[in-house]
Amino acid sequence: MEGLMNNPAFHTYAVCSAILAIKMLITGNYTTLQRMKNKGFVNAEDAQSFGGQPSEQEHPAVAHALRIQRNDLENIPLFFVIGLIFVLGGASPFAASVYCWTFTIARLVHWVAYLNHLQPWRAICYFVGYLTILGMAVQILF
Amino acid sequence: MEGLMNNPAFHTYAVCSAILAIKMLITGNYTTLQRMKNKGFVNAEDAQSFGGQPSEQEHPAVAHALRIQRNDLENIPLFFVIGLIFVLGGASPFAASVYCWTFTIARLVHWVAYLNHLQPWRAICYFVGYLTILGMAVQILF
Amino acid sequence: MEGLMNNPAFHTYAVCSAILAIKMLITGNYTTLQRMKNKGFVNAEDAQSFGGQPSEQEHPAVAHALRIQRNDLENIPLFFVIGLIFVLGGASPFAASVYCWTFTIARLVHWVAYLNHLQPWRAICYFVGYLTILGMAVQILF
Repeated sequence: MEGLMNNPAFHTYAVCSAILAIKMLITGNYTTLQRMKNKGFVNAEDAQSFGGQPSEQEHPAVAHALRIQRNDLENIPLFFVIGLIFVLGGASPFAASVYCWTFTIARLVHWVAYLNHLQPWRAICYFVGYLTILGMAVQILF
Repeated sequence: MEGLMNNPAFHTYAVCSAILAIKMLITGNYTTLQRMKNKGFVNAEDAQSFGGQPSEQEHPAVAHALRIQRNDLENIPLFFVIGLIFVLGGASPFAASVYCWTFTIARLVHWVAYLNHLQPWRAICYFVGYLTILGMAVQILF
Repeated sequence: MEGLMNNPAFHTYAVCSAILAIKMLITGNYTTLQRMKNKGFVNAEDAQSFGGQPSEQEHPAVAHALRIQRNDLENIPLFFVIGLIFVLGGASPFAASVYCWTFTIARLVHWVAYLNHLQPWRAICYFVGYLTILGMAVQILF
C-alpha cells in the first residue's frame, strides 16, 4: 500500500481530523482543569490522590465542561466516519475541502462559543456542523 | 485513488453508515426537541435565549433522550470502525451485507423500542447489534 | 479491492482496534451487570422488566461503571480515527506497532486500574494513551 497522503481529498480530511482530535484532547484537559480547580471529584480515589472530598454530584463548572465534551462526542465522530467514507469513496478535492474545512471551523468556533456561554453563536455553529455531516451522508446515499 | 464505491462490500458499509449517521443526527434533534418542549435547560445561556429557568438536573424527558443518544454513542461508533476495518480488510460482499444490514436494522428497531419504552425488544435489538460487532471483531482477530 | 490485511501496519492497527472494540463491549456489559446486581434502573420499563424500582439518580456503582465507559468514549474513538489515518497515510510497520500497541496496552491497564479504583495508575495510563494519540495527530499534521 502506498500512503494516501498524496491524494488531496484524503490529505485535507486527514489534516482536519488531526486538528479536531487535538481539539478534543484539549477539551478533555479543560474538564480535568475544572475538576482540579474546583476540587470537583466524584471518584473517591481521585479526591484522595488530589485533595478534597468526593461528591455525588458534579461541580457546575465540571458539568459544563462535560457538556462541551459530550456535544463533541455526539458530532465529531460522525464527521470522522462520514468524512472518511466521503473521501475514500472518491470525493473531489474541492468538495472535500469545502466540507472538511467548514465542519472544522464551525466546531472550533462552537468550542469558543460554548466556553464563553455565547448564544445563539453556539447554536449556529452546531447547526453548520450538522448540515455538513448531513450533506456528506446524503451524497454517500445517492 | 479511485473511489472505493465500486467495491460492493465498501458500498454496503457506506450506505449503512450514512443511514446510521443520519439516524444519530435525528436522535440529537429529538433531545433538542424535548429540551425545548419541556423548557429543560441546564445551561443558563440557553434558558436566557430560549425561555425558561436553568435547572441543575436534566428534565426526565431530556434525560431519557440523552440515554438514547448515549446508547448509540456506546455502540454505533464501534460499528463504524470495526465495519470499516472488516470491509477494507477484504470482506466478501455477502458477509459485509449480512453484518452491515443486520446491525443497521437492529439499531433502527432499537431506536423505535427505546423511544416507546418497549422492553424486552430494546434489549434484544441491543444484543443483536452487540453480536454483530463482536462477530466482525473476532473475524478480524483470527 | 484487495484486502489491506497483508499490509503489516494496517494489520497491527486492525488487531489492536478489534481488541479495543471487544474491551469496550465488555465494559458495557460491566455497566449492565452493576445495574442488574444493584437493581439500579433509571428507565421505568427496565425496572418493570428486570425487577426493582426506577430511581432518578444512577446507583453509585452504576455511575462508576458509566464513568469508565465515558472515559473510553472520550479516548478510544480518537485512536480509531487517528490510527486509521496514520496507517492509511503510509506509516511504517514499526511506527504503527509502537503507537498501536502502546495505546492498546495503556487502555487495558487503565481499565484494570479504574475497575479497582487505583490512582495514580489510572491517571498515568490515561496520559500514555493521550500522548499516543497526540503523537500520531502531530505526525499527520506535519
